[in-house]
Amino acid sequence: MTNPLNKEIDIITSNNSKLKNVDFDNLTFGRTFTDYMFVCDYIDGEWQQPKIMPYQAMTFEPSARVFHYGQAVFEGMKAYKDENDNVILFRPEDNLKRINISAARLAMPEFPKDIFMNGLSTLLKLDKDWIKSGVGNSLYIRPFIIATEPAISASPANSYRFIIICSPAKAYYTGKVRVLFAQKYSRSADGGVGFAKAAGNYAAQFYPTSLAQAKGYQQIIWTDANTHEFLEEAGTMNIFFRINNTLITAPTSDRILDGITRRSIIQLAKDNNINIEVRRVSVIEIKEAAKNGSLKEIFGAGTAAVISPISAFEHADEVFEIPDTENSYASLFKNQLLNIQHNLSDDRHGWRFEVK
Amino acid sequence: MTNPLNKEIDIITSNNSKLKNVDFDNLTFGRTFTDYMFVCDYIDGEWQQPKIMPYQAMTFEPSARVFHYGQAVFEGMKAYKDENDNVILFRPEDNLKRINISAARLAMPEFPKDIFMNGLSTLLKLDKDWIKSGVGNSLYIRPFIIATEPAISASPANSYRFIIICSPAKAYYTGKVRVLFAQKYSRSADGGVGFAKAAGNYAAQFYPTSLAQAKGYQQIIWTDANTHEFLEEAGTMNIFFRINNTLITAPTSDRILDGITRRSIIQLAKDNNINIEVRRVSVIEIKEAAKNGSLKEIFGAGTAAVISPISAFEHADEVFEIPDTENSYASLFKNQLLNIQHNLSDDRHGWRFEVK
Ligand SMILES: Cc1ncc(COP(=O)(O)O)c(C=O)c1O
Ligand SMILES: Cc1ncc(COP(=O)(O)O)c(C=O)c1O
Repeated sequence: MTNPLNKEIDIITSNNSKLKNVDFDNLTFGRTFTDYMFVCDYIDGEWQQPKIMPYQAMTFEPSARVFHYGQAVFEGMKAYKDENDNVILFRPEDNLKRINISAARLAMPEFPKDIFMNGLSTLLKLDKDWIKSGVGNSLYIRPFIIATEPAISASPANSYRFIIICSPAKAYYTGKVRVLFAQKYSRSADGGVGFAKAAGNYAAQFYPTSLAQAKGYQQIIWTDANTHEFLEEAGTMNIFFRINNTLITAPTSDRILDGITRRSIIQLAKDNNINIEVRRVSVIEIKEAAKNGSLKEIFGAGTAAVISPISAFEHADEVFEIPDTENSYASLFKNQLLNIQHNLSDDRHGWRFEVK
Repeated sequence: MTNPLNKEIDIITSNNSKLKNVDFDNLTFGRTFTDYMFVCDYIDGEWQQPKIMPYQAMTFEPSARVFHYGQAVFEGMKAYKDENDNVILFRPEDNLKRINISAARLAMPEFPKDIFMNGLSTLLKLDKDWIKSGVGNSLYIRPFIIATEPAISASPANSYRFIIICSPAKAYYTGKVRVLFAQKYSRSADGGVGFAKAAGNYAAQFYPTSLAQAKGYQQIIWTDANTHEFLEEAGTMNIFFRINNTLITAPTSDRILDGITRRSIIQLAKDNNINIEVRRVSVIEIKEAAKNGSLKEIFGAGTAAVISPISAFEHADEVFEIPDTENSYASLFKNQLLNIQHNLSDDRHGWRFEVK
């Protein structure tokens, strides 16, 4: 991938901030967008002049390939503000690496790291008043790449657009989540695109999730498509199981997204001298652990909710409630992660990135 | 799904046809679009006023869900012109049924049949000069539905757009196709969305297909993701195998698209007293048949190319050339299908639909 650009970003500013109209106490996730966005087109084998402009609607041909063949990948990351109004990102280069892994799997061009880091920092400086300090508050950042070429033959596009939009997110306590272990539907195949943040992976989960929701479960824990015997991940979270004092999570594979929160928790577990096993986790093992009382916790881990404790699961019409645990690992890791993200504790592993 | 509309379609005409600029002898598939398109929005639980307007670019919010979560389904169909300039469709209601099956699997609203048939006919009457007579010429029709709601939480959208665009397609002889039997990558999982014409299914195939192309194979024949032992379908075609005088094709499942061409060929085989078996086809069986000379033909079947004869396949580094057969079923069915589509033969099964 050539990168012809050591050019500066073209910036179109506006004097008309929407910020004053936003009620930060009543934000619905993903519906309010900041003043600016970052845009960079890929044409004729090269990324073009990067731009920052007021967030706005864009024109697309109805024949743009993204509408027909789903060539679209994305990332989800957050910016935080510390007590001194510094803007902090959490492992941002890992998101860039992952969007490029996703892009390669969908035959899309990779985005250059220097333009990404520079674009992101410049955008966040323009939008910095949208980031509220206070633990739990954040600005959700959505980089994505879509195929824009107007052509409806089933083959990779020749033109793409890379965009970053941002949406303020309120500190929230989601409440405990009840989940269904998948037995019929599945999220991804061996040899498929489950490890990529490919747009189509998400739409595919909506209908099965709506069936689970109708039964009173907010989310599905996906199992392997072949046997439905092994627990893999949730729709937007990796999953951890605590049996007695051992933490277990499934290994990543071509079916499972390599979550940055998951990777951070594995490290934090080691830092806290918690026994962590990365191995296949069977439905039977978890049901037995629930029955004999050794299953202490299940929790999801992902950028959006950080950690989501799971209070109950259903499998094969059996429902298991997971009693509250004192000194839960879920709250330990959530606090440690939030403290790192908000610059309230040491950053042993160099996960913080300060926007300057 | 309520349908409030017995309203007429709103039509915005233009005096400025692009037709005169089109070189019908040098069409690249899917790059030239007709003068008009059909558009209907879904808002607040209802399909709104259907419209026909000049084909044109549209505005979308960068946060439109289709860009992020791949809620997008489509269809591919063709209009033909007979010798008396009548415009003919082939089993169009089957396409409407299928887009609604695809939509339901992706938690999207179904589109009402009456608006579809009326919209399609009205559109084709406006664009009728784009349809050239002559066997093999056709107008490719692309209905699709995309999630337009500007919100980036991972859940089904509340607003959608249904669009039909059309692209003239030249009679073409693709030449014989060489294929690779999949051993590592896969197209869809049990319990997944392989049976739906979901946008994301196509992008997922581009990278593995590019690897096959680098080895000299135009397409991949996908196998089951669990064992890679059974042959399923190609990227945009179902697959038929002829062993001696028996025709075999895989049964449809939640992994395989229920192709209208496939269904028509199964019927035509019966009409022609050809022994047809709908059952699992193993890689081993086909390799053995190739070795002992009983494998007479492999061909793909789909709307775009009608029938594509396959001249060779590779599996596990073994390459098998399939010698030409006299009286091939591929050409028999291709001729019979084209004759029905172009109003040159009887239509025993009522597959033709004349646009009036
Ligand atoms: C399928 C899936 N699994 C897991 C995660 C968690 O990944 P991360 O911790 O990098 O946000 C995500 C993304 O949010 C996801 O989409
Ligand atoms: C995956 C797939 N299989 C098979 C087909 C053939 O279906 P049809 O004969 O209805 O065009 C298509 C569509 O063109 C397809 O996308």
